Amino acid sequence: MPEFDRVLIGGLGLLGGSAALAIRRHGLAREIAACGRRDLTPAIDAGLIDRQPHSLEEAAREADFIILATPVEVLRRQLPRVIERARPGAIITDVGSTKSLLVEAAEAATGPGRFVGSHPMAGSHRTGWEAATPTLFEGTTTYVTVTSRTDPDAAARLCRFWEQLGSRTVVTDPAHHDALCALLSHVPHLTASALVELIAQAGEDPAFLRVLAGSGLRDTTRVALGSGAIWEEICTHNREEIATRLEATAGILRSLAGDIRRAPPGALAERLDRAAALRARLDRGAE
Amino acid sequence: MPEFDRVLIGGLGLLGGSAALAIRRHGLAREIAACGRRDLTPAIDAGLIDRQPHSLEEAAREADFIILATPVEVLRRQLPRVIERARPGAIITDVGSTKSLLVEAAEAATGPGRFVGSHPMAGSHRTGWEAATPTLFEGTTTYVTVTSRTDPDAAARLCRFWEQLGSRTVVTDPAHHDALCALLSHVPHLTASALVELIAQAGEDPAFLRVLAGSGLRDTTRVALGSGAIWEEICTHNREEIATRLEATAGILRSLAGDIRRAPPGALAERLDRAAALRARLDRGAE
Repeated sequence: MPEFDRVLIGGLGLLGGSAALAIRRHGLAREIAACGRRDLTPAIDAGLIDRQPHSLEEAAREADFIILATPVEVLRRQLPRVIERARPGAIITDVGSTKSLLVEAAEAATGPGRFVGSHPMAGSHRTGWEAATPTLFEGTTTYVTVTSRTDPDAAARLCRFWEQLGSRTVVTDPAHHDALCALLSHVPHLTASALVELIAQAGEDPAFLRVLAGSGLRDTTRVALGSGAIWEEICTHNREEIATRLEATAGILRSLAGDIRRAPPGALAERLDRAAALRARLDRGAE
Repeated sequence: MPEFDRVLIGGLGLLGGSAALAIRRHGLAREIAACGRRDLTPAIDAGLIDRQPHSLEEAAREADFIILATPVEVLRRQLPRVIERARPGAIITDVGSTKSLLVEAAEAATGPGRFVGSHPMAGSHRTGWEAATPTLFEGTTTYVTVTSRTDPDAAARLCRFWEQLGSRTVVTDPAHHDALCALLSHVPHLTASALVELIAQAGEDPAFLRVLAGSGLRDTTRVALGSGAIWEEICTHNREEIATRLEATAGILRSLAGDIRRAPPGALAERLDRAAALRARLDRGAE
């Protein structure tokens, strides 16, 4: 008996497509349907999904597990509509990389569906279901967000689902999720973009800079390759956490500049070594 | 006939040791000697070098090519002493990652040695000659710095040397080198360290953060693993370029925070997409 009867995926991109493949591989559903703006016949032919319903809202009436994997602004509109139409007992989740506004929108909906937010920290520089892989979630961490209104049984089943896909789950509330993601993902992303802006301001020929860019610079700025539209949405959804922490980072940079100009010998080394020690503890396999 | 008769390496760490191995592999010298604070008998036994003279200054009298690969503060003291003792026509270079102060120190020396600064952009998280590899310089870029006092023949031979080791050379003056390195290496390094400080300020348990840290964060902050002492020296040698650009980066972060709070829809996306486009042009294989 598969864990779920009918799974519905909203938005068949890299994450939705990889979830479909992983659900297949682990035999977690009898049927997988997916909705998307594109014609998904090639994805049906490739065996990712069984069918493409015409309307997400209509298909929501039939599914017992719904994963919405659209951009966060689309999620904010889709979540209430899907929750209101879902069957009693159905579990609905999303994979949005911000949570407070989405959970708020979902919990404002009145319906029989049981919503629990997810944020699987999986991705690739490639996009679209064509880049999907059943192992995308293996070894990753997935946030599962709960509030006082979350059904504990639905949260537990959702955690089990992500764990079956090979991801470790971390359960927290939406505000803490957003604070952690600002710190660990959103601000680092924007800081990488700021470094590229700094480089742009120098006015050197990019072909010359490419010869001079070492692996350190490429690593440090790699995330700045992301889509501006997606990151604007994330910033809109997590505005205050991100803006405040960007300003804090600016303060640290000014303080480092001050140390470089004025600190007594050894003080900057000690400061950098403290950061290096914490950074070492963030590597997998540390401790 | 090898390119050089007697090569002398000052400081047999990762860079010096890798230079020794590469010189061997390409048959560029009849003999390789190296000086260092440690007993280098194991490096002799391992075949990296032929002998360890007792004194760098004494050994400098006999070599026709001298590569100093010690930390920048040591280089500042060693360079004049070595240049003053070198044989007429001998070529002396260093591999320091800052250039203005070192070239100034070298050019203040009066002696028959011909000094040309180098900065091979090669490295590893590992250190010491035990981590050395003859391919360390392959596919890298090496700055060769010239001034009005540089012997053009010595600069040409030094460029050929690095190219024989598989590195591409970029010839520029020390000030431009330091400005480029502040932009492309030093400020990114300190910014990575600042991001780790921001994370430290949040007061979360590092073991918890490790579970949440994605590959993006690890890439963005990897360079912050570097040695504080080495980076304090670099900051001392390139103080004004680094401090000024750190402050400029702080300004960009504040401006991004302002956009996140107030910019009209689409403006932040466009700004981030501009940075992503430049970042894409910095990848090898781009264009």
